[in-house]
Amino acid sequence: MYRDIMCGKISSSNEETKISLAGWVSKRRDHGQLIFIDLRDKSGIMQIVFNPEVSESAHNHAKDLRSEWVISVSGTVKKRIAGAENPDISTGNYELIVDSIEILSKSKTPPFEVSDSNDVSEEVRLKYRFLDLRRDSMQKKISLRHRVTKFIWENLSQKGFTHVETPILIKSTPEGARDYVVPSRVKNGSFYALPQSPQQMKQMLMVSGCDRYFQIARCFRDEDLRADRQPEHTQLDLEMSFVHQEDVMEAVESLYIDLISSVNSDMKVDKIFEKMTYSEAMNNYGSDKPDLRFGMQLKNLTDIAQNIESNVISNSLANGGILKGFTAKNASSYGRKDFDRLTDLVKSQGAGGLIYISIPSDLQEPVQIDQTNGPLNKFYSKENFDSIIQKTEASAGDVIFMIIGDEKTVNASLSFLRNHIAKEKNLIDIDTMKFVWITDFPLFEKDDENNWQAAHHVFSAPKPDDVEFLDTDPGKVKADLFDLVCNGVELGSGSIRIHDRKLQEKVFDVIGYSKKDVSSLFGHLLDAFEYGVPPHGGMGLGLDRLVAMLSHEESIREVIAFPKTQTASDLLFGSPDVISEDQLDELSINIIKEEEE
Amino acid sequence: MYRDIMCGKISSSNEETKISLAGWVSKRRDHGQLIFIDLRDKSGIMQIVFNPEVSESAHNHAKDLRSEWVISVSGTVKKRIAGAENPDISTGNYELIVDSIEILSKSKTPPFEVSDSNDVSEEVRLKYRFLDLRRDSMQKKISLRHRVTKFIWENLSQKGFTHVETPILIKSTPEGARDYVVPSRVKNGSFYALPQSPQQMKQMLMVSGCDRYFQIARCFRDEDLRADRQPEHTQLDLEMSFVHQEDVMEAVESLYIDLISSVNSDMKVDKIFEKMTYSEAMNNYGSDKPDLRFGMQLKNLTDIAQNIESNVISNSLANGGILKGFTAKNASSYGRKDFDRLTDLVKSQGAGGLIYISIPSDLQEPVQIDQTNGPLNKFYSKENFDSIIQKTEASAGDVIFMIIGDEKTVNASLSFLRNHIAKEKNLIDIDTMKFVWITDFPLFEKDDENNWQAAHHVFSAPKPDDVEFLDTDPGKVKADLFDLVCNGVELGSGSIRIHDRKLQEKVFDVIGYSKKDVSSLFGHLLDAFEYGVPPHGGMGLGLDRLVAMLSHEESIREVIAFPKTQTASDLLFGSPDVISEDQLDELSINIIKEEEE
Repeated sequence: MYRDIMCGKISSSNEETKISLAGWVSKRRDHGQLIFIDLRDKSGIMQIVFNPEVSESAHNHAKDLRSEWVISVSGTVKKRIAGAENPDISTGNYELIVDSIEILSKSKTPPFEVSDSNDVSEEVRLKYRFLDLRRDSMQKKISLRHRVTKFIWENLSQKGFTHVETPILIKSTPEGARDYVVPSRVKNGSFYALPQSPQQMKQMLMVSGCDRYFQIARCFRDEDLRADRQPEHTQLDLEMSFVHQEDVMEAVESLYIDLISSVNSDMKVDKIFEKMTYSEAMNNYGSDKPDLRFGMQLKNLTDIAQNIESNVISNSLANGGILKGFTAKNASSYGRKDFDRLTDLVKSQGAGGLIYISIPSDLQEPVQIDQTNGPLNKFYSKENFDSIIQKTEASAGDVIFMIIGDEKTVNASLSFLRNHIAKEKNLIDIDTMKFVWITDFPLFEKDDENNWQAAHHVFSAPKPDDVEFLDTDPGKVKADLFDLVCNGVELGSGSIRIHDRKLQEKVFDVIGYSKKDVSSLFGHLLDAFEYGVPPHGGMGLGLDRLVAMLSHEESIREVIAFPKTQTASDLLFGSPDVISEDQLDELSINIIKEEEE
Repeated sequence: MYRDIMCGKISSSNEETKISLAGWVSKRRDHGQLIFIDLRDKSGIMQIVFNPEVSESAHNHAKDLRSEWVISVSGTVKKRIAGAENPDISTGNYELIVDSIEILSKSKTPPFEVSDSNDVSEEVRLKYRFLDLRRDSMQKKISLRHRVTKFIWENLSQKGFTHVETPILIKSTPEGARDYVVPSRVKNGSFYALPQSPQQMKQMLMVSGCDRYFQIARCFRDEDLRADRQPEHTQLDLEMSFVHQEDVMEAVESLYIDLISSVNSDMKVDKIFEKMTYSEAMNNYGSDKPDLRFGMQLKNLTDIAQNIESNVISNSLANGGILKGFTAKNASSYGRKDFDRLTDLVKSQGAGGLIYISIPSDLQEPVQIDQTNGPLNKFYSKENFDSIIQKTEASAGDVIFMIIGDEKTVNASLSFLRNHIAKEKNLIDIDTMKFVWITDFPLFEKDDENNWQAAHHVFSAPKPDDVEFLDTDPGKVKADLFDLVCNGVELGSGSIRIHDRKLQEKVFDVIGYSKKDVSSLFGHLLDAFEYGVPPHGGMGLGLDRLVAMLSHEESIREVIAFPKTQTASDLLFGSPDVISEDQLDELSINIIKEEEE
């Protein structure tokens, strides 16, 4: 070993002993006679001192040292002289007086300093990821990810779950996103696909009597990448036999509560996981991913709108529009410019405009129309106005925000506005994770071509009472489907699965799969269902997202060692790239060049 | 939940209580009035009893039950009557008197009984893997795999290793085997490759200051499958900074010793890991994967052969041949037929023939030629014979086996014979794992076209003293390369890596890579080496193989939930398979049909 101990581990027990250390030169200060180096490794920093009176040769070498050189040194640990201590690092009371040095590797001048205090573009960070990862903050995130994964192993093992590795080379089946495929060299014209999730495999494991399964599973989706998607991501995948929805929720709840309290992140967890149906969430928050760290519930004001004598409102209502709004407490400091800004914001989400009533804070209750400001104020009758105030529970100092339009747009825009204002007004305790279960999702939704599609995936079970509507009114069928949402972000999705061949076939039928497609794509699972299958259900939970959240990071790229960009390329290793003609020949494939298409 | 407790967990504390169970019908015995069912889940078996006097309706349902139906039952746990206990199962003192039953899923008659006692072809087992996995022996292997992986997590975490997930979609680089590739939809004509191992990524992590890395890593190789290879396998991948060869060995040794003692397999571990150089292994065992659970070391008898007046021998020697042999103790019961059989065996390995001297067990020492049997006996002088006896340490009752020919064939054939005889003569303690480190491998070996190739992989460091031979005599260069061998099987391979750009370029030069290839294939790593890289080394260890060995299984397919066949196809899920024209179009690739090639 090139060292006896790691840099950050030096303590009083090492005082006056001879040890060797190895690491990277972090900072170098040349004080004429003495040269001080901050030597860095993963564990921390130790000050090492080169004194020509101790070793002239070592001191001579030290003159050449530059940032990021890798060295190994031997010497004696001494207490620093009084006043020279550094309370910012754990080894700050000590220094190593070097008597010999070996230079293990030199470094060019790095494109950015390895330190948390500088601001480097993400492109440069990704290209030089090996330098970026040397930063303390990155090491901490990678280490947190390790602890999170380890905790999951321990917790779920204790609960009787078995980790099973399922294949990465599988068969292509349409499951929402596009599959990545792998040409087979052995079977001409055939392909493997990379799993979008181990869904079918884990259901097969339940048929196999596995009872409680989990996997830290890599999942692949060939999507046009949105802001924060990766071509490959990691999922905590789990499945349980002989359970109902509540049993799955309970297992995940207790896992997450214990995990967040145990892994030493800065995050606290609110131990109460609320439960909310999909329609409650849409009604009260305009979103199935409501952020419950703050209030500002939406209120439906359509009834009141009926009586407002404004063309804007009556035209919208005539087209089936609805009016919803919420109260931002103590927001009356917003001025004209702010309202313009917020109006632009909701327009970017599709809304026609933003209606507001701003109530000055120095007002005597009850609030009167003419004491408030708002674009539609002149259209409200006293009755209209009082009803709005009452329903939105607004009072002096508040602002009521309202949007009218079709339900989907109103919900999306108000939900966006609600989140925006909460952030802007600092209403959010950013150190708390507030979970909520969203349940009772519809089983189907219409796609752009007005055909029924599975809202989540094709294997989710309809609520037993709704099975009768499969034939008559699929849109009415609710599913044993549940999402885990935290701080406004979906962290996972689960369901009780269909475990009956006939019912599964009926669902395929509603979606419009032909018998032939069903047999070729799902035949293996349906066949297995003929040999005794337990009722089962489970979840897929985003691991990258969870760790990002625990790290106070917005982007999952921050918690992936070697992530890809939004064009799915790796700036460090340079993938994807051309392959050789020989490789193509062996695979019996031709590339259709873009200009030829 | 459909149950209160699992079947195998019933104990005295449940006696006389009302509980519900769920599981598969394993056996059904109809005793006229009473119907007995063995109800099975992952935890074990519980006898349940249907008595019409307790519930006529449940009893009626029970008449229909068949093997592998899935049911949920409620009832009261009773002690079985004296004499009716079943000591073979943990719940054998109890039975559940059922008062209600729900049939959750019916089953067709399965193609084979779910029991360990039957013999089913592997093809049928793989096609019906969901039934095969229900067998107790399969559940145990999957569970052992879980415990092994969990132990690795715990042990290496404790030692300061961090688990880092590296990408599966990487860039194609030639690393021994063929890459599986994934066409990019976004970048026309470009491909990702699936990693043969995370080699370059983990070295990049060392450059990143990760210090101690491990990963339970899926690795992919598009090989023409030999007996027991899989297109994807799992590797315990690890890498350490600031270490020498011994440090890596020590970390792995202590991991394996503790692991094998802890995971509750039937295997014991011999805690002494021998160390043996590559040339010692080849000289003494004819193999770099020697099985050290038994003796029978090979002896080089070429010196003696010089003096044997036989044309067979002198012709071979004239062609550069060597004579080696070993003594099989107490093997003189082998008769003519056995010797013919063993001769055929070594011929199948390329040997020209098998020379033996069989010494009857009732012989008086010293042994005389004419008291022994052997095909070349008439050619030995007394001096020849005595030297052979002495060198091979043979005595009454033993057989000396010898082969003459070129070194490679002699070693391969004798090594094969040695293993065969050990098995045949029951010389092997099959419950012990006997490890040995093989060190000092050559860095290069010649390929079929007489060019130098990396013997293991291109990143292994030459021994410092041998660097000078890189220019003059590459075949002489030994490497800081080490294999972990157990019971004659390679369980892993490791090395200290090159951490100097110039040295790495020199190695690429010997192998004959052009500057352009080096830059395109390895440029990212070489560039990273310019920014301060610690000395580092590590290993890749086969996880499937380890678990198979701990399970007394020969094939890794036994410890993989959904393995592929030797033609790399999945008989259950049906991969690989054709994909749609739309998918091909999106990827801009054409298939060259086989008949067109």
